Amino acid sequence: MEVAKVLHMNGGVGETSYANNSLVQRKVIYLTKPLRDEAITSMYNNTLSKSLTIADLGCSSGSNTLLVILDIIKVVEKLCRKLNHKSPEYMIYLNDLPGNDFNTIFKSLDIFKEKLLDEMGTEMGPCFFSGVPGSFHGRIFPLQSLHFVHSSYSLHWLSKVPEGADNNKGNIYISSTSPLNVVKAYYKQFQIDFSLFLKCRAEEIVEGGCMIITFVGRKSDNPTSKECCYIWELLAMALNDMVLEGIIKEEKLNTFNIPIYYPSPSEVKLEVITEGSFVMNQLEISEVNWNARDDFESESFGDDGYNVAQCMRALAEPLLVSHFGEGVVKEIFNRYKKYLTDRNSKGRTKFINITILLAKRS
Amino acid sequence: MEVAKVLHMNGGVGETSYANNSLVQRKVIYLTKPLRDEAITSMYNNTLSKSLTIADLGCSSGSNTLLVILDIIKVVEKLCRKLNHKSPEYMIYLNDLPGNDFNTIFKSLDIFKEKLLDEMGTEMGPCFFSGVPGSFHGRIFPLQSLHFVHSSYSLHWLSKVPEGADNNKGNIYISSTSPLNVVKAYYKQFQIDFSLFLKCRAEEIVEGGCMIITFVGRKSDNPTSKECCYIWELLAMALNDMVLEGIIKEEKLNTFNIPIYYPSPSEVKLEVITEGSFVMNQLEISEVNWNARDDFESESFGDDGYNVAQCMRALAEPLLVSHFGEGVVKEIFNRYKKYLTDRNSKGRTKFINITILLAKRS
Repeated sequence: MEVAKVLHMNGGVGETSYANNSLVQRKVIYLTKPLRDEAITSMYNNTLSKSLTIADLGCSSGSNTLLVILDIIKVVEKLCRKLNHKSPEYMIYLNDLPGNDFNTIFKSLDIFKEKLLDEMGTEMGPCFFSGVPGSFHGRIFPLQSLHFVHSSYSLHWLSKVPEGADNNKGNIYISSTSPLNVVKAYYKQFQIDFSLFLKCRAEEIVEGGCMIITFVGRKSDNPTSKECCYIWELLAMALNDMVLEGIIKEEKLNTFNIPIYYPSPSEVKLEVITEGSFVMNQLEISEVNWNARDDFESESFGDDGYNVAQCMRALAEPLLVSHFGEGVVKEIFNRYKKYLTDRNSKGRTKFINITILLAKRS
Repeated sequence: MEVAKVLHMNGGVGETSYANNSLVQRKVIYLTKPLRDEAITSMYNNTLSKSLTIADLGCSSGSNTLLVILDIIKVVEKLCRKLNHKSPEYMIYLNDLPGNDFNTIFKSLDIFKEKLLDEMGTEMGPCFFSGVPGSFHGRIFPLQSLHFVHSSYSLHWLSKVPEGADNNKGNIYISSTSPLNVVKAYYKQFQIDFSLFLKCRAEEIVEGGCMIITFVGRKSDNPTSKECCYIWELLAMALNDMVLEGIIKEEKLNTFNIPIYYPSPSEVKLEVITEGSFVMNQLEISEVNWNARDDFESESFGDDGYNVAQCMRALAEPLLVSHFGEGVVKEIFNRYKKYLTDRNSKGRTKFINITILLAKRS
């Protein structure tokens, strides 16, 4: 089934969008700021357009949603003041799946705009917001309408579970025990989806425009490497335990695969080159602890609610509910949490993030 | 208090948007179709743009929301086939206040698109949707970004209760017993709001673009005429009864005024001419029975749910709740309904609609 369809089947904030609002994501937004700032500065310096259109793909709905937008506007405003250039009109497109809670975002915009006005002053141009529901695995914006596209922690989602991966017995993602055809099927789906994504964005981005994308990925060339697979292997362990105890049917587990792909830098590069619409100006690799609280030691983020189990729950719950049913999901996450805690106690484990900066070819 | 703020204070579908989804509005959409079809045909014939941007201001959320958009697309597609011209890419902006239920609209778009594809076939260009939260009494779109603007049953809302209308004792809108300063204050607020509306839209609409607006209005030059005031006078009667019975405090009633203005054709014309950005190509007056079921006698619309009390409730409830409190609102509408039923039994009463077609001056 298409990912978009599955994700729409469940209501609730943060469960129906590509991205999630975890600390992990906040950390990623912080880590990628220098590259993002450089990209928007260079792009705006070259165009100095009167109207600046920015799209955030996979915006989700929560505390991280407008962070990047605020950052980007600050950078442009600083540049305008330095150059003594009139501040542009901003058009901000916030995109996510139709099941995302856009109502909550929209109701928060008045306060966000007041904050902007407070920080930037009245010299700043007007800022218009618009919600765009739909999957970025297809066209969602008019031709040549975007200057700057941002997407964080969304593009590792595939458009659907890869076809031909149905003999991935006991696993739910690529694993060291997956048959070769499963690994190939996952990679093929990544190629199809990412290539179509690039083609669609190339039609939507103006000449001189650019795009910055962060996905979870891997450093290794081996797609079965622990660095990207282990987080799902632990979930598979929890599910396998429940099969052994007769809570979940073996057949149910064997037909479940997570529609995500964590690519390597060279796989990403290859697709950008093959598709041909964009030049890759930068590729950066960063790391965030599974339990991102470890990265914010000096700050206080409340209780244990912010941990990797919660982050993964936000990511996987709609898919698990849709496949295994509402009844067992709490139990799945209780067991998963134990495996994660156990793993964490043996040393910090990290998400590998790949951030790329793409400029549209003229 | 600003209307937008009050309307946001209450949740619930259809209570937090400018427009409402009553039969009255459906009838108006039907009545204004010939003029709308002519307008979009003429506009698109002149521009034949590759990308066509349409905005619906006060789109609400319900069964009427996408009716006009469907109509407009059908007209353009028919024209393209007649001219053997390639179908454009459609960008549809759906605007309403931030409290409108955009989530419900967004979740209905997949079905709407399937319907479009069924009816129009694959020759039709892609259709992109976007939700724009905000008050049309200010700028909400980028400079020169719209080709065709539609607004039905929304623009009679004022941006706020007129200042200096606080001696409108026993009344809640303009009435034959309102002091002259109250009538003047209402008219002044209409002038300010409508003029600003025109100025903002002039900045947003491209050269060659146009706008079609329907408001509830009046035929008479007298702003205290029964044809526009009576529907509110009946609500005031219900409220006055409750004051007499001690359910509502007199002072509470005396400080309540509805932020709406039903203009005359000449008042509308005057503002368009004075503001100067648009040429008025047409002005049409139409009438719809308060109880629009009377207009659909041959069709079946279920039970008494669709009646004028419900229509007025959707319109006025958020304001009444905000001013008089949740507790008395049910009672207010029970009494109002009796007055309306009584009035209806004495002969059909009608809403007067003014529809104008405005082309942007080059």
